[in-house]
Amino acid sequence: MILCDIGNTTLDFYKNSIRSKILIDDYKDINSSDTIYYISVNEKISERLTRYNNWIDIGLCVDKSRFYETMGIDRIMVCLAVKDGVIIDAGSAITVDIMKDGEFMGGYIALGLEKSASCYAGISSKLHGSYNFEQDFDKIPKNTQDAITYAQLGLLYKDVVSYNLPIYLTGGDADKLKSVFKFATVDGDLVFKSMLEIIKGADLC
Amino acid sequence: MILCDIGNTTLDFYKNSIRSKILIDDYKDINSSDTIYYISVNEKISERLTRYNNWIDIGLCVDKSRFYETMGIDRIMVCLAVKDGVIIDAGSAITVDIMKDGEFMGGYIALGLEKSASCYAGISSKLHGSYNFEQDFDKIPKNTQDAITYAQLGLLYKDVVSYNLPIYLTGGDADKLKSVFKFATVDGDLVFKSMLEIIKGADLC
Repeated sequence: MILCDIGNTTLDFYKNSIRSKILIDDYKDINSSDTIYYISVNEKISERLTRYNNWIDIGLCVDKSRFYETMGIDRIMVCLAVKDGVIIDAGSAITVDIMKDGEFMGGYIALGLEKSASCYAGISSKLHGSYNFEQDFDKIPKNTQDAITYAQLGLLYKDVVSYNLPIYLTGGDADKLKSVFKFATVDGDLVFKSMLEIIKGADLC
Repeated sequence: MILCDIGNTTLDFYKNSIRSKILIDDYKDINSSDTIYYISVNEKISERLTRYNNWIDIGLCVDKSRFYETMGIDRIMVCLAVKDGVIIDAGSAITVDIMKDGEFMGGYIALGLEKSASCYAGISSKLHGSYNFEQDFDKIPKNTQDAITYAQLGLLYKDVVSYNLPIYLTGGDADKLKSVFKFATVDGDLVFKSMLEIIKGADLC
């Protein structure tokens, strides 16, 4: 079975627990006869895929009323994989969502590490925007790198731990954030685990 | 007496309590015979101004050892204006600094409102990056605008109020942040107040 998580710029495939990522612009196999179960936050691609019977949109099988209308399907998927916890999905954005007893409590969207770093660099060359992942957030910073790290990761850390729930890290920058959230579970496949559950549970998919 | 706060792109003048701002590229009066007391975070302009006797660098009269070596002189100036408090200087960056009994405890540097909004928009058109300044940060967000606002302002708010100190707002976006920090004192002239104190206290300036 082939799964695919379609983002704004990439296709993230999952087959027999093996991941492979390809830029949308580089992907030439859309006409392949394989059945591919997908979710997509990319409306342009979603529209195009409706013309292919072998591309099956798993997002249509999800009860989105438990979340909110404009919430990204990728974000919903990682939430569905966790009954109790704070789920941090660190990619071009960092989404932070809180699940309690299987219920979505809400969440927020911070800027991704790379995006925010380039944003700092755009303000001033002195704010070069590399992060200190080993920083002690109990101390108020007294140097520029720590001052930037505290704003982008320290405030996030303080909020995340305040929920007193298990912490799950997923997404491309999960390993980097593991240094900050030392007790977190890193699971890069949360989105695919939910997709597999939905495929198992749904009649049509 | 004319004061000037020189940033990366603008000159911010202060004369008889009246402010006027001009883009560096538009400023043609550098040869004026007026004595101008200035601070500058713009090394290129600072270097150029050393050739003019009527431009007097107030930054040279400040004991920077109380802060940290690479801390911006504009940030140091707003800190020097406050004995006890959290000072939020909201411009292209949002600096947050903590002063206790006249001592600098540390601080951090978040992205400015405009910068971060454009950064969100660069991730996805769905993250248009306008903020809800009236948001209740006791509730975990369940819509996109609030999810972005919470990440950029909610986390900041929670940290700032945790110090239990008076809050001071300054910088170009101080009025916008007043909706978030309702009990804060807005004072756009903190940097100039410190400059005036230094000019009074110093022998050479």
